[in-house]
Amino acid sequence: MERHLDQDLEDLKKLLLKMGILVEAAVFEATEALKELNSKRANAVVSGDKAIDEWENTVDEKCLDLLALQQPMAGDLRFITMSMKISTDLERMADLAVDIAQRVIELSDKPLLKPLIDIPKLTKLAQQMSKNALDAFVNRDADLAGRAILLDREADRLRNLVQKELIEEYMSKDPSTVSRAVPLLLIARHLERICDHATNIAEDVIYMVQAKVVRHHPEQLK
Amino acid sequence: MERHLDQDLEDLKKLLLKMGILVEAAVFEATEALKELNSKRANAVVSGDKAIDEWENTVDEKCLDLLALQQPMAGDLRFITMSMKISTDLERMADLAVDIAQRVIELSDKPLLKPLIDIPKLTKLAQQMSKNALDAFVNRDADLAGRAILLDREADRLRNLVQKELIEEYMSKDPSTVSRAVPLLLIARHLERICDHATNIAEDVIYMVQAKVVRHHPEQLK
Repeated sequence: MERHLDQDLEDLKKLLLKMGILVEAAVFEATEALKELNSKRANAVVSGDKAIDEWENTVDEKCLDLLALQQPMAGDLRFITMSMKISTDLERMADLAVDIAQRVIELSDKPLLKPLIDIPKLTKLAQQMSKNALDAFVNRDADLAGRAILLDREADRLRNLVQKELIEEYMSKDPSTVSRAVPLLLIARHLERICDHATNIAEDVIYMVQAKVVRHHPEQLK
Repeated sequence: MERHLDQDLEDLKKLLLKMGILVEAAVFEATEALKELNSKRANAVVSGDKAIDEWENTVDEKCLDLLALQQPMAGDLRFITMSMKISTDLERMADLAVDIAQRVIELSDKPLLKPLIDIPKLTKLAQQMSKNALDAFVNRDADLAGRAILLDREADRLRNLVQKELIEEYMSKDPSTVSRAVPLLLIARHLERICDHATNIAEDVIYMVQAKVVRHHPEQLK
């Protein structure tokens, strides 16, 4: 029985990991599409989302089966319930990749505002936080998860910077930039929300590994 | 044993219901603050959020206890796992109420753009969808949940309308409106996301009651 559960938990971990890789790829492709203003690449992100949606259902189904059939305890129970939460966050990260891709499609028939301000920095941060959160999950690494969470403030800062600059330096000075600046402003928000979901995942990893609730309790990170 | 579980499930339902009422109130207060451009009322929403955050942890803890100690099956198991998902959605709805309140604070030292376009309609829809989703949860009413989900398209439509009008009729014509129009544009997006979370809750209610997965499968609603 014990062994059977171990194998099932390993299978669940692999499911989430595959889903995570797809989501990371969606975020990467959406941000590359932005760099190139490539609507074909952006469209591929949009049409790939259905597959990721299915993954959320697959993970949840597996979790419910395990809860019903194996009656797991303690750490195993935390692993399964946190997996359900993580699948939700991953799916929403993929939705945000789609949101970014849709903004790219809107922008692709217009000349891009140069420069992209701090959006490339925010992009890198979103990619890094997503990667750290997933790696922390795979390796049950609460320290790495903690470091991912601490980056979230920088994401907020960069988002605010981008927004301020777009409003003050572009839109308020030259109304002809508005239709190009608004999608960029939204992209900055989408990226920052990807960071929020990475933070949620990292918090769930810490709970999973240490049974310590850091969600809404950042002081617990110290 | 059976009776003990019934009582525990009833307690869990009450916890979620209380959390739901607080979240509905936060959304209501944030949108009233917008109508009045009342920064004091908006500040109260911001400072009330910490209590709602705690509710998410309380609900999750209760769910984990029930899963560990009662080893529930079938419908009870679905009720408990969906309660964990619903608490997450409720908490994020409260965060969005805070986002709206923060936009109101930004706007409160500026004359408001009149009219608020379709934001009042979108506000009503967000309130209605939130109420329907919670009522559906309390009464295990899958029909009501299904009706809530079908309203989500209207929320998308209204959000797009507001955004288009702000860009084309205000910001692109008169750059002096930008700093007042951007917060309104974001508020429309926050409201639409509240509707998304209400949709998630309604989907979870249908799964809880009917064991039918409608998430990512709108065709199942027919």
